[in-house]
Amino acid sequence: MTAGSSKDAVKAALTTQALETPSWAYGNSGTRFKVFAQPGVPRTPQEKLDDAARVHAHTGVAPTVALHIPWDRVDDYGALADHAAKRGLRLGTINANVFQDDDYRLGSVTNPDPAVRRKAVAHLLECVDIMDATGSKDLKLWFSDGTNYPGQDDLRDRQDRLSEALRTVYDRLGDDQRMLLEYKLFEPAFYATDVPDWGTAYAHCLKLGPKAQVVVDTGHHAPGTNIEFIVATLLREGRLGGFDFNSRFYADDDLMVGAADPFQLFRIMYEVVRGGGLATGASGAPGVAFMLDQCHNIETKIPAIIRSVMNVQEATAKALLVDAEALSDAQRRGDVLAANGALMDAYNTDVRPLLAEVREESGLAPDPLRAYERSGWQEQIVEDRVGGVQAGWGA
Amino acid sequence: MTAGSSKDAVKAALTTQALETPSWAYGNSGTRFKVFAQPGVPRTPQEKLDDAARVHAHTGVAPTVALHIPWDRVDDYGALADHAAKRGLRLGTINANVFQDDDYRLGSVTNPDPAVRRKAVAHLLECVDIMDATGSKDLKLWFSDGTNYPGQDDLRDRQDRLSEALRTVYDRLGDDQRMLLEYKLFEPAFYATDVPDWGTAYAHCLKLGPKAQVVVDTGHHAPGTNIEFIVATLLREGRLGGFDFNSRFYADDDLMVGAADPFQLFRIMYEVVRGGGLATGASGAPGVAFMLDQCHNIETKIPAIIRSVMNVQEATAKALLVDAEALSDAQRRGDVLAANGALMDAYNTDVRPLLAEVREESGLAPDPLRAYERSGWQEQIVEDRVGGVQAGWGA
Amino acid sequence: MTAGSSKDAVKAALTTQALETPSWAYGNSGTRFKVFAQPGVPRTPQEKLDDAARVHAHTGVAPTVALHIPWDRVDDYGALADHAAKRGLRLGTINANVFQDDDYRLGSVTNPDPAVRRKAVAHLLECVDIMDATGSKDLKLWFSDGTNYPGQDDLRDRQDRLSEALRTVYDRLGDDQRMLLEYKLFEPAFYATDVPDWGTAYAHCLKLGPKAQVVVDTGHHAPGTNIEFIVATLLREGRLGGFDFNSRFYADDDLMVGAADPFQLFRIMYEVVRGGGLATGASGAPGVAFMLDQCHNIETKIPAIIRSVMNVQEATAKALLVDAEALSDAQRRGDVLAANGALMDAYNTDVRPLLAEVREESGLAPDPLRAYERSGWQEQIVEDRVGGVQAGWGA
Amino acid sequence: MTAGSSKDAVKAALTTQALETPSWAYGNSGTRFKVFAQPGVPRTPQEKLDDAARVHAHTGVAPTVALHIPWDRVDDYGALADHAAKRGLRLGTINANVFQDDDYRLGSVTNPDPAVRRKAVAHLLECVDIMDATGSKDLKLWFSDGTNYPGQDDLRDRQDRLSEALRTVYDRLGDDQRMLLEYKLFEPAFYATDVPDWGTAYAHCLKLGPKAQVVVDTGHHAPGTNIEFIVATLLREGRLGGFDFNSRFYADDDLMVGAADPFQLFRIMYEVVRGGGLATGASGAPGVAFMLDQCHNIETKIPAIIRSVMNVQEATAKALLVDAEALSDAQRRGDVLAANGALMDAYNTDVRPLLAEVREESGLAPDPLRAYERSGWQEQIVEDRVGGVQAGWGA
Repeated sequence: MTAGSSKDAVKAALTTQALETPSWAYGNSGTRFKVFAQPGVPRTPQEKLDDAARVHAHTGVAPTVALHIPWDRVDDYGALADHAAKRGLRLGTINANVFQDDDYRLGSVTNPDPAVRRKAVAHLLECVDIMDATGSKDLKLWFSDGTNYPGQDDLRDRQDRLSEALRTVYDRLGDDQRMLLEYKLFEPAFYATDVPDWGTAYAHCLKLGPKAQVVVDTGHHAPGTNIEFIVATLLREGRLGGFDFNSRFYADDDLMVGAADPFQLFRIMYEVVRGGGLATGASGAPGVAFMLDQCHNIETKIPAIIRSVMNVQEATAKALLVDAEALSDAQRRGDVLAANGALMDAYNTDVRPLLAEVREESGLAPDPLRAYERSGWQEQIVEDRVGGVQAGWGA
Repeated sequence: MTAGSSKDAVKAALTTQALETPSWAYGNSGTRFKVFAQPGVPRTPQEKLDDAARVHAHTGVAPTVALHIPWDRVDDYGALADHAAKRGLRLGTINANVFQDDDYRLGSVTNPDPAVRRKAVAHLLECVDIMDATGSKDLKLWFSDGTNYPGQDDLRDRQDRLSEALRTVYDRLGDDQRMLLEYKLFEPAFYATDVPDWGTAYAHCLKLGPKAQVVVDTGHHAPGTNIEFIVATLLREGRLGGFDFNSRFYADDDLMVGAADPFQLFRIMYEVVRGGGLATGASGAPGVAFMLDQCHNIETKIPAIIRSVMNVQEATAKALLVDAEALSDAQRRGDVLAANGALMDAYNTDVRPLLAEVREESGLAPDPLRAYERSGWQEQIVEDRVGGVQAGWGA
Repeated sequence: MTAGSSKDAVKAALTTQALETPSWAYGNSGTRFKVFAQPGVPRTPQEKLDDAARVHAHTGVAPTVALHIPWDRVDDYGALADHAAKRGLRLGTINANVFQDDDYRLGSVTNPDPAVRRKAVAHLLECVDIMDATGSKDLKLWFSDGTNYPGQDDLRDRQDRLSEALRTVYDRLGDDQRMLLEYKLFEPAFYATDVPDWGTAYAHCLKLGPKAQVVVDTGHHAPGTNIEFIVATLLREGRLGGFDFNSRFYADDDLMVGAADPFQLFRIMYEVVRGGGLATGASGAPGVAFMLDQCHNIETKIPAIIRSVMNVQEATAKALLVDAEALSDAQRRGDVLAANGALMDAYNTDVRPLLAEVREESGLAPDPLRAYERSGWQEQIVEDRVGGVQAGWGA
Repeated sequence: MTAGSSKDAVKAALTTQALETPSWAYGNSGTRFKVFAQPGVPRTPQEKLDDAARVHAHTGVAPTVALHIPWDRVDDYGALADHAAKRGLRLGTINANVFQDDDYRLGSVTNPDPAVRRKAVAHLLECVDIMDATGSKDLKLWFSDGTNYPGQDDLRDRQDRLSEALRTVYDRLGDDQRMLLEYKLFEPAFYATDVPDWGTAYAHCLKLGPKAQVVVDTGHHAPGTNIEFIVATLLREGRLGGFDFNSRFYADDDLMVGAADPFQLFRIMYEVVRGGGLATGASGAPGVAFMLDQCHNIETKIPAIIRSVMNVQEATAKALLVDAEALSDAQRRGDVLAANGALMDAYNTDVRPLLAEVREESGLAPDPLRAYERSGWQEQIVEDRVGGVQAGWGA
């Protein structure tokens, strides 16, 4: 978006925005203290897609769904892709899971035991096979690997093992496939995490090659970290693969994106727009992937996801509305207050009417939450989805 | 401990030290990502006591065991107390649990629904009944209550509800029973916790009366909090009920106490000694309760608890070795380096030989970890405890 | 403000809002690395008042000015009050300063040296004398006292000394005078601060009596602290004396209030409104004092203060606009998303038009910043205030 | 150091250790609230060197002194080097200063004004000239550059400007000269710092070439950052240029190294030893530079620096004492407690007797602090250094 974007240009950009919702957010989640089950939660990957289709139907900007293997393992991924297609969806990023097997107590790809490492790498390679089957373009790798106690393992050896595993997987990727490497400060590792920050992820990606990109999960940083700086830097380096959006007041709280600090989300989206990241994500080209990764522990899941999508839209709309010319002019003059004011003018704008317009012009109801409520879907799934095992982490 | 403590006085103080280990630390625990089961873990409250008895046998300073209701619910608490007594143990603090029922999704004693509040209070009152049966003196209350989203509930109404519940329980306490109120910054609540800091716990205790005391869990603070200052302040106010010891690098990591920041543990124990808290705890009088509250997610549980007990002993020994006269003299002179040096001299001392002496004079092996290893207990329980359901959070 | 406030009621509340600007914010400030001097900065307390009068003239809600002794020491405080009155201002809170004398290297009222303590207390008593002369109602006490190294001084002795000093000053207060005790986590003390948190300030105030109240500086907390919870709690306890408003991304950054986290400021103002704190502050009665305490290190000072006042107004307006009935109803039903949504609806509203109306109805220009810019005052002071010594910390 | 280091090998490594003390630590420093002047503080660069010579005389491991330009600007750097040499010292790292001129209010090398950027780069180039004159090998670059408010300047443009400036300076370096790039989370910039983390510094260094290396200041991280992980990673990447040692409880407190968290310092030195960083630093080859960067705001400066040197020595000694074979064996077996125990065994060792031996074998007194005290130097400088302007930041 350039200076002086017309309202039409803003609306056009908002129309083409595409977010990816995660299959696991439709299932149960919780903390180590308790997982509160909710009525109507999906029992199968198909039912997760059914719910995701409602989010897309009401918002118009959530056409893809991320899968988590093995939680979404099915016999026939082609059939699953068909199930999605019939509901107007596509299967998106494949998320590997190497943290829920007893073998991974001391790590997966960085485990001191080579047999465990081989098992973990085999799972990652299987995920690429699944990508081939689903047509997914991105493999997202988050490793819970790390140590809880100083001395528990050798920090450097673990980097060597990580490097070797990533290389093996990278070499298996197809031409149009990417590896998205996620970092996280802590949890479940409580002393040292093997990919704790963007610098570590970036260094590994650099060595791997252009198909390796960094993922920014907005809840994975130390207190006080300026996340939008990281976003701007990774875009400048051509290494921002995407986001895992959520929000937090403390640690990796996984609250609805924009719920804890909407101004931060705006600043992030401003840097995305500034760095050209929105355009790439909106096109079909491999650009910045805008994914949600949240836990709706106590709130109803589908409307929480709709709300999250709307929060990202609102932050994006505000970012697009920044008067780039006024901003740039004040920055060049060194007028601190005017430059800050130019940014705040956009932030302080109530963009909800604009987004209502965008939706109505696309044939959608102006208020997705109200539309979902009126659709009766929630009552239906509560009634229908009785029996079976509710989806959740580990299922 | 006063200035110029003789070695004998230090050893005497160390001999009378008493720590309480938590029944749940012998069972499985984990993070929201995974609970790694360990072989040999107890299946019953009785087996937890059997393990706790080994910790006491090798260290000599862990004579009591905290129970968690309902995890340790039994039909006959008198029989459970007998089981403990036969192994040289006593049943200690009763820990209430109002966070694992589906009804508590939006809180227990602060829930907006009065029916849920009544249920929670009933559980707390049941815990006092259990205290009567076990002879436990302390009721420990930790509430997971809080909110995840701004606006979710009224912060002030929740304080009113909390206040009412605490009053009901307080009034039920016997003359020699106490209520220990624990605070925690966050988790599982991610926006506002109803008892988030020592100030809130203290304000409630003040209103309740002298039998209400504050518990300091060393992992429950915001980054940068000076915990020993809180300890000194609560002792000065006569409101330090006890500790839940553990350690952390990030959040409430629940690592072995002393593992993450042994210097901090020393400073805490120094303030305990300075404020007269060790004497009270060591006597039978209601004083400062020294409890462990940890999660041995990946390390073997019994030796981890032995190690934790030793870490507290070592920190205590160093605190007792501070040359109070030299310290006080330097402080009065305003000699910053000398005063800091007096404290560091004690910290830099290797107290392991002294503690080995203390143990040998008590008829114990000098190295409890080695003694446990040689005892064959670990191999025995791995062999014996097959089948059944391993204890853990929720079981 | 109660449920369903009419627009008129909101406007009335906004009209009666009163903020206090600090004399020192008009002078130079900086970091330990550099104080950047700005042209036109006041050289005298009188010139600071002249600038403050411009802020009040354009906003209509900043009628009082806080003084800092000795920075604003004058021979004739009556004359200074007259100077203020002629410009439509009143002299507000008196801020004591016991941190800039070489004697205070190891503390002021908590210094191990009794002679230094006597000197510090004498200064505090002098400040009460000045209050008598200026008609100020509030004495604000912030102590930089603390220690940099463990062992440097005895934490508990320092509390005893603090307690004694506060008692002496408290007993000197007139019937309509208050003591506002401020807490701060760290800086300039880097190990232990003697009043580090609200709990410590509260405990001292409780013992002193009803004229002792706690001040919340929004930049004085550990990362992750829920400030609005503290505000709600202190209001519930009847001990919230006032605010020192500013904002921060990291530590005590002293940026313009609302600049770093406008959503947090809104949540704070919501709790103020919810707890009845706005009404008291707006009346003449001793209520919650809304003060700014900021450092405009790099931005032009007067417009920065105007902007800060506007930010508080906007947050207040949004807080007043919360549909209390809808919120309360959703909270009672346990509808997490609806309750959060009710709060967010108010936050997402663009209240700038409403505030423009409020100003115009009071005979002010709708945009205070533009009005200030057009007034020519800035050019005037840059031209006039040449020579002399610019005001700043320490002058 | 390899597994099973003999005591002799440990002592040899300790003997060859070399630390650099910073000229500015001998002068006055403080916080934004107050700089407390101390008697006897140097007035000239020469007097700083005189003091530094005392530190080296008593410790034997502090042979070089870092200079800060312009604080240590002299007419004849050759003469200054001679002054140093006569006292057994060498001039070390040259520290550029582009943060104390009024022109740098909005940045130095990243300032939006190209004229300011040129001025800043000219200063950096002058520093290389000084290196040529002093024989210094390392240019240390810390930039205070950043912004205080969102929108104030363009984050990405500032990276471009930074990149250009660094390139110009890098190209000017001689064959045996290095650029050490330091990062810092915040202060004095309070929104975005232009080099906020190791990742940013690393990315710039990578592009510049092998003579560009990253400096780790132990006080420049977000809360919770695992610094030893960064150390291990940078060593693995061949990009660890050196340390600025100090310690902190909160932000960039600049306390004596090892004072706040001695266990962290040990873990850092362990990774240095593990990664081969000690050997390079100890030899004359360009390796890891071990520098102090501290502020002795309230404690006497020379003994504080001696204490700091001793703290680094003690941490190094403990790191060297780790039984690498036992550690590695336990790590390979996945024995968490044994591996942690192997590290802790070394940490819990009292190494003061060993260091006393090392000193005595080098002809030094066993206790450097006591030796300094007895030397009479402190009384001498207090008596002699009267009049003139004491050195400090800005002088």
